[in-house]
Amino acid sequence: MDLVAGIDIGGTKTKLGLVSNSGECVVSMNFRTKEYPDLEDFLDKTAQSVQELIQKMPSKVNLLGVGIGAPNASNKRGTIEYAANLYWKGIVPLQDKLQERMDIPMKVTNDANAAALGEMLFGNAKGMKDFVVITLGTGLGSGVVSNGSLVYGYDGFAGEFGHIAWLPEDGRVDGMGVKGGLEAYVSATGLKRTIVYMMSKYPDESRFRSIAFNDLHGEEITRAAEEGDPIAIKAFEYTGEILGKALANFTLFSQPEAYFLVGGLANCGKWIFEPTQKHMEDHLLEMYKGKVCIMSSGMAEKNVAVSGAAALIWMDQYSS
Amino acid sequence: MDLVAGIDIGGTKTKLGLVSNSGECVVSMNFRTKEYPDLEDFLDKTAQSVQELIQKMPSKVNLLGVGIGAPNASNKRGTIEYAANLYWKGIVPLQDKLQERMDIPMKVTNDANAAALGEMLFGNAKGMKDFVVITLGTGLGSGVVSNGSLVYGYDGFAGEFGHIAWLPEDGRVDGMGVKGGLEAYVSATGLKRTIVYMMSKYPDESRFRSIAFNDLHGEEITRAAEEGDPIAIKAFEYTGEILGKALANFTLFSQPEAYFLVGGLANCGKWIFEPTQKHMEDHLLEMYKGKVCIMSSGMAEKNVAVSGAAALIWMDQYSS
Repeated sequence: MDLVAGIDIGGTKTKLGLVSNSGECVVSMNFRTKEYPDLEDFLDKTAQSVQELIQKMPSKVNLLGVGIGAPNASNKRGTIEYAANLYWKGIVPLQDKLQERMDIPMKVTNDANAAALGEMLFGNAKGMKDFVVITLGTGLGSGVVSNGSLVYGYDGFAGEFGHIAWLPEDGRVDGMGVKGGLEAYVSATGLKRTIVYMMSKYPDESRFRSIAFNDLHGEEITRAAEEGDPIAIKAFEYTGEILGKALANFTLFSQPEAYFLVGGLANCGKWIFEPTQKHMEDHLLEMYKGKVCIMSSGMAEKNVAVSGAAALIWMDQYSS
Repeated sequence: MDLVAGIDIGGTKTKLGLVSNSGECVVSMNFRTKEYPDLEDFLDKTAQSVQELIQKMPSKVNLLGVGIGAPNASNKRGTIEYAANLYWKGIVPLQDKLQERMDIPMKVTNDANAAALGEMLFGNAKGMKDFVVITLGTGLGSGVVSNGSLVYGYDGFAGEFGHIAWLPEDGRVDGMGVKGGLEAYVSATGLKRTIVYMMSKYPDESRFRSIAFNDLHGEEITRAAEEGDPIAIKAFEYTGEILGKALANFTLFSQPEAYFLVGGLANCGKWIFEPTQKHMEDHLLEMYKGKVCIMSSGMAEKNVAVSGAAALIWMDQYSS
């Protein structure tokens, strides 16, 4: 059976799986990234985990390659560079070192680019040539597809919308120290920051006044909005307004047919999609109005990050 | 002799030329766009002008096609849509109607995209796969090349950096009514607006206090800066700061190897290039630092707009 190993390296967990040509993750596992502060140990564990997955399969596996999604990863250099949420600092030669352990085709890109490829091969972007995937987790990532190809940039670091200095005057500082960086507002973490901001700004009663910042979660903020909590409702409206205006402006770059909102914050459903759609449409220039969709992922039933990483390799199989 | 007709439709003039495979405009002419407020008349005049150019050539011309650059033009639809500076309003079916008069291969795109193709085929972007051309004339246009291809977008309107709401709080209104739109600051017109803004803000003596706004020109502002005029110097510094920060942020989209500054404002030389370079570098994220160049056009000796438009057709000849 032809399969591709998909690996998603995150600050907390590393997820691995074997993925079929329809994007199904047929077997998977994960381990805690932080237990491997030494890169060599991490790579040993990764290579060994892929072997374990292969051995778990009842039939013989023909492993076509390994696709890896990781924060701040460069496809052109096979490196992770200056990732804020990983132990390994500076420039990490991920691909070269993993290739020493596994001599098969290997590709690396950032997690949002992998998600975009996954959406194009296996999800709701099938058949689209121009779209953008926005991942709304701890931070905000983006994968831009233009003319049917990922926009990688000169050495692989295109599509980092999260650090665009969007509101430099207002000035929340994001995870990379950018003042007004978009992800400080629009991400799962950004929403939590907006909840406490709204409690600072308005006197309204709210259940969140008795919950510590670190205990806030998207699901509960959604539930509170459903029940009419004024702070939760204001927070979603504010987040959607900022994201909607940002998407209207991003349209001036690559004019995508659709933006896909995926990840934690996107799971808040209409509370994030509706204000985003409204404010984007209000701010689109005439020539773009009515032409840009905001969509949800078609990968909900799949293992998005792992299948997306595997799409790096499946992509080549499709086009060859 | 194999030649391509390049046509650049501007608000004031329409320029036409026959262009060789090295980007040389071997014969050219122009007429005033505004003398043809009726689209049919304009198209008759255009088709007739191409014939005249062919007849001017001493040897037999094999016309391979017609490439057209125009504001707000869509390559996918062959239209000009909602162009602020042209008589013809709404959606103009340019290509279809010109094709009725000239039955040869024809392509349309916006003027900045044409400039980018020209730079790639004939200018300083030869061999580059990821770069952006910024045209700094009456407005600010942009042509983005990624993976060696122009980023056209879903229906051809990608690359409109001039209308990005860059300083919405401050709020100069640009030619399309966008508050804080980049081109209201960074363009030949934007520089003039900054000259009068600086005269409003500072009490410094300046030659520009005795010149009317409509009589301001880039060459004179450059000369004034050379001679130490404090308003001119402040205006360039302000313009370069805004452009430099904008380019640092744009890098998060497509990570180009280079930005090419072309057109009127770019002719101000070091007064615009130096502050732009400095502020861009200061604001680039770590992973981009030292990797992004700001360059001038390699088309200075050529008829940029006409050769760029012709590149639309030559491009296909090269790749086939």
